[in-house]
Amino acid sequence: MAPQYAPSLRSRLPLVAFLLETIFVLLFVFFVKIEQHEQIDRKYDSKLFIRSYAEFQDIHVMIFMGFGFLATFLVRYGFSGSGFNVLLAAMAIQWAVMMNGFLLPQRHYRREIHISMKSVIEAELCAASALVAMGAVHGKTNPVQLLLMALVEVTGFVINQWILRTLLHADPVYSIMLLHIFGALFGVMVSWVLHREGINPKHEKEKTDRNTGLFAMLGTLFLWMFWPSFNSALVYHRRERELKLTVIYGTYLSLAVSAVMAISVSMLTNSKGKMNMVHIQSSALSGGVAIGVAMTAVHTPWIAMTIGFFASLLSALGFRYMKDHMLFAFECHDTCGVINVHAIPGILGWFANLILRLASSESTIAMRLAVYHICVLLITVCMSLVMGTATGLFLKWSFWRPQQDRKCFDDQAFWEFPNLVVKK
Amino acid sequence: MAPQYAPSLRSRLPLVAFLLETIFVLLFVFFVKIEQHEQIDRKYDSKLFIRSYAEFQDIHVMIFMGFGFLATFLVRYGFSGSGFNVLLAAMAIQWAVMMNGFLLPQRHYRREIHISMKSVIEAELCAASALVAMGAVHGKTNPVQLLLMALVEVTGFVINQWILRTLLHADPVYSIMLLHIFGALFGVMVSWVLHREGINPKHEKEKTDRNTGLFAMLGTLFLWMFWPSFNSALVYHRRERELKLTVIYGTYLSLAVSAVMAISVSMLTNSKGKMNMVHIQSSALSGGVAIGVAMTAVHTPWIAMTIGFFASLLSALGFRYMKDHMLFAFECHDTCGVINVHAIPGILGWFANLILRLASSESTIAMRLAVYHICVLLITVCMSLVMGTATGLFLKWSFWRPQQDRKCFDDQAFWEFPNLVVKK
Amino acid sequence: MAPQYAPSLRSRLPLVAFLLETIFVLLFVFFVKIEQHEQIDRKYDSKLFIRSYAEFQDIHVMIFMGFGFLATFLVRYGFSGSGFNVLLAAMAIQWAVMMNGFLLPQRHYRREIHISMKSVIEAELCAASALVAMGAVHGKTNPVQLLLMALVEVTGFVINQWILRTLLHADPVYSIMLLHIFGALFGVMVSWVLHREGINPKHEKEKTDRNTGLFAMLGTLFLWMFWPSFNSALVYHRRERELKLTVIYGTYLSLAVSAVMAISVSMLTNSKGKMNMVHIQSSALSGGVAIGVAMTAVHTPWIAMTIGFFASLLSALGFRYMKDHMLFAFECHDTCGVINVHAIPGILGWFANLILRLASSESTIAMRLAVYHICVLLITVCMSLVMGTATGLFLKWSFWRPQQDRKCFDDQAFWEFPNLVVKK
Repeated sequence: MAPQYAPSLRSRLPLVAFLLETIFVLLFVFFVKIEQHEQIDRKYDSKLFIRSYAEFQDIHVMIFMGFGFLATFLVRYGFSGSGFNVLLAAMAIQWAVMMNGFLLPQRHYRREIHISMKSVIEAELCAASALVAMGAVHGKTNPVQLLLMALVEVTGFVINQWILRTLLHADPVYSIMLLHIFGALFGVMVSWVLHREGINPKHEKEKTDRNTGLFAMLGTLFLWMFWPSFNSALVYHRRERELKLTVIYGTYLSLAVSAVMAISVSMLTNSKGKMNMVHIQSSALSGGVAIGVAMTAVHTPWIAMTIGFFASLLSALGFRYMKDHMLFAFECHDTCGVINVHAIPGILGWFANLILRLASSESTIAMRLAVYHICVLLITVCMSLVMGTATGLFLKWSFWRPQQDRKCFDDQAFWEFPNLVVKK
Repeated sequence: MAPQYAPSLRSRLPLVAFLLETIFVLLFVFFVKIEQHEQIDRKYDSKLFIRSYAEFQDIHVMIFMGFGFLATFLVRYGFSGSGFNVLLAAMAIQWAVMMNGFLLPQRHYRREIHISMKSVIEAELCAASALVAMGAVHGKTNPVQLLLMALVEVTGFVINQWILRTLLHADPVYSIMLLHIFGALFGVMVSWVLHREGINPKHEKEKTDRNTGLFAMLGTLFLWMFWPSFNSALVYHRRERELKLTVIYGTYLSLAVSAVMAISVSMLTNSKGKMNMVHIQSSALSGGVAIGVAMTAVHTPWIAMTIGFFASLLSALGFRYMKDHMLFAFECHDTCGVINVHAIPGILGWFANLILRLASSESTIAMRLAVYHICVLLITVCMSLVMGTATGLFLKWSFWRPQQDRKCFDDQAFWEFPNLVVKK
Repeated sequence: MAPQYAPSLRSRLPLVAFLLETIFVLLFVFFVKIEQHEQIDRKYDSKLFIRSYAEFQDIHVMIFMGFGFLATFLVRYGFSGSGFNVLLAAMAIQWAVMMNGFLLPQRHYRREIHISMKSVIEAELCAASALVAMGAVHGKTNPVQLLLMALVEVTGFVINQWILRTLLHADPVYSIMLLHIFGALFGVMVSWVLHREGINPKHEKEKTDRNTGLFAMLGTLFLWMFWPSFNSALVYHRRERELKLTVIYGTYLSLAVSAVMAISVSMLTNSKGKMNMVHIQSSALSGGVAIGVAMTAVHTPWIAMTIGFFASLLSALGFRYMKDHMLFAFECHDTCGVINVHAIPGILGWFANLILRLASSESTIAMRLAVYHICVLLITVCMSLVMGTATGLFLKWSFWRPQQDRKCFDDQAFWEFPNLVVKK
């Protein structure tokens, strides 16, 4: 007979976390230093630091508050949604600081990794790609599986960046902005491999209520409000000041349009004219994703608004019509709909980027440009699909003690609830 | 017989929103550019930008988080309170960028509108005045009505600013800070025209509970914490540095005093000595409103604290004794009590401004000064009353499909709730 | 027979608050000015101001949002937890501005107190120590008692700083970072003196639920995210730039490690392998406390991470095994577990500071250094214990109308709930 309680992770998670954390501290002992003062122009850096710290804080809020509370929309999964987000992000950031330092050359002096605002911001963006992947498997995996998935995802994403930068000489900002496409496809593949019959047709606990809808609104708003910082953080302030401002205003306007469109489309596609809060929250963000991928090619506000318009349209339609279809046709369940929020708008952004660059370049190099951009996308997609599948197979190992079907989307598998212990 | 379900907005809201959004994008195509680099002193602007972006973010959080969650206090209206806030603010900002650009001259070069941090901050402040107006009609109007009201309100408010600036040569910062008085009176007039018998004496759904009280606390706190940025954002940093600091510290102290007073008065005026959370949340903000109108005349901390003291006193008394009276005597229902939070403290601030200026000016110009300030207030009040009434009449048109009385203050008229669809 | 309702505070709190607020305004009239422009180097200050205002805002959010919502974890105490926090913090800040101005010399020109970003940040840190103390007595005291306790605590903490700075020539930053140890021990002593049998063995209302757990998560995250600003705010930017960066990165990494450890230890120490949300939220913050006390001596990332590791380990073990033990053995009830979050990690940080300084100093001065640090700790501990006991005895006076045992941890003693008034 199946056990009454969810399988205990007491002998798994603490061990894995202790071990990894000890390894991280040891690696930091030998390799990581705080950026030395002598190596940088004092006056220049002082201003850059002021600017960067505020941007870093915005992104920090997005990672921990935004992603964390966006995942609280499930009615019985709020503790896990926000709690596992902290665990994963905290580990992924430490790991990303080192991976970035080892593989991506610019912060790699004499075998030392130097922590700076830039390296921390890049680490947070890598962690964001892991959190996007987590969105696809929320509720169907336990924290050990999530933790391992996050570390593999960060590794894969940094390797992907390394390939793009060294083989294709891609722009670092462009290669890191592919995080949405990489993370979403990675997560969807893991979810596909880990598919379980118990959540078919629809798990009884996979719904929202008044309170969790508002908690998710909170997360959504923090992502939505600070997205201009997310996109513009790595655009170098001094040399590319105009680009930075263009990115900030473009992201801002794109998000405004996509919020309006998300609400409209959600109402239009319901037979009773009622809006769906979860769809709106997710689709409102799609404008930020699309413009993020295309941003270096967008120079006027109206193009940004148009990209936000179509990103939100596609995303909102995807939520209504594609999410269930994917579950039935491909047996692929995507809890937070990351394919509609991150993958499709990301690819739309990639497409907009290509079109805009072709339109502004001479016809002689147009073909080379197109091939280059298609290669970038293909490599990213292949890397994410292959690594996602491999990770899914690894996580399927029963050693990791997945929860039972009926404990999916439920905090009670992992959290103590005092009202069960103390009589009322 | 009345329909079982609320009238569907499926054929109204998406159409209006698509249409407006398309018009906005087209207007942006022809008129709006991102501020060009050549036109501004590079070094100077770099610093100003750093400063402004942080202030802009604070205001951005106030508009979307603050106003949005402040309106979630109604027990069954949380989705609408926060969701409609995003819709309205996102549309109002786009519209305000253009209205400001067309009417208010300083950002109007050769028939082009240039987006800059200043123009975006001003657009957000105009959106704030629309959100104040929305506070009066929350729960009794549908999103199409709210959307149209917001756009008319922004138009009226920008025209009012234009009148004050061109006819009376009013200070731009002063004229924009009248947003509280304009928005509140506008909203109250709309609410008066749209009055329905069904919410008399008190609608059964117009109350708060533990969770919605805390969500509203969240919105209140974000407004309360970032209000110093809201008031000081448009005070020009370089030339009026001392004034900017004075405004920041003054707003900060005024808000601290008004929070303490709100709690005290709320307890004192209840027969059992119990506090009312909704009253406290609203009255704690009144200090920021009052000091905002008076700020350019306040030079010492204690005056700011005194203004906060009396603003909160009046506001808290108004909540206890005036709100119900207004409903019975004038058949005017004010959902969020904007008249007590924005209109009365705003007029108190206007009065403090007048007194302080008279006290520090010579007697020869005292009369002119008084007449000038009375004119400013009268024009603003008349504009808001007239436009509010006209807007209310327009929105009364049954074409806009207002919800039934028993669906007032209820999310279910507009939102899908999954627990109704999926059996537990 | 005991009264049916909680004793009304209608004749106590408003009177005390009005009186104190009036005294504060009068003191501000005579003593407090906004920092004059002539006394400071213009160019230098402009940059410092930009930097400081952002840091101030981070700390402001921590004090009002962070501490406020951290205290909402009790299932029926959310309004009080967040509402009393605003009341206390707003009063404590006004009082701390004056106490700091009177006692601590650097901002004391010609008997005037000048408000500057630095003085406001210091006032907020003093208020933080009062809020830590409040954590120990939450739910067992009424708002008048809390208000008086907060003002005495701030007075005691500023006097303690004055003693350390004038007698022992302690570093101002170091002396203010002892706020955790001072506040926690002060609060625990107050709680010990005010101990009531009714909360023994465990009060039926002292538990959390899904929603309050998430509200507390919100407060935790805002504290956790902005803690780098909290620790680094008073490190002088220009002269000690490297130290400032080291503090920021150190706090960041320490917190990341302590979040991971809190989750691991909480799962490991539960027999069913389930995590406890309240413990995790509190322990995740302990890394920031410990590194805050030790920060000026920590120069490499791995030392910061190690401090976070052990702080969180001790704190999480303390929550599991010491909290109940303290209640039974010493009759001392500590609502938020401040002894495990602030006192023990604070002392660990003090110890780390001592060891690191001894390791890097010559042996000839090692003994003097050790004696000096032990004196600093002893003075702080004695001051907090003595003043906490005295305050507890003063608050035990029945004139302050403490609530009955069965109204402990319950909002209904102090707040109007509309659903009790209006029939559904």
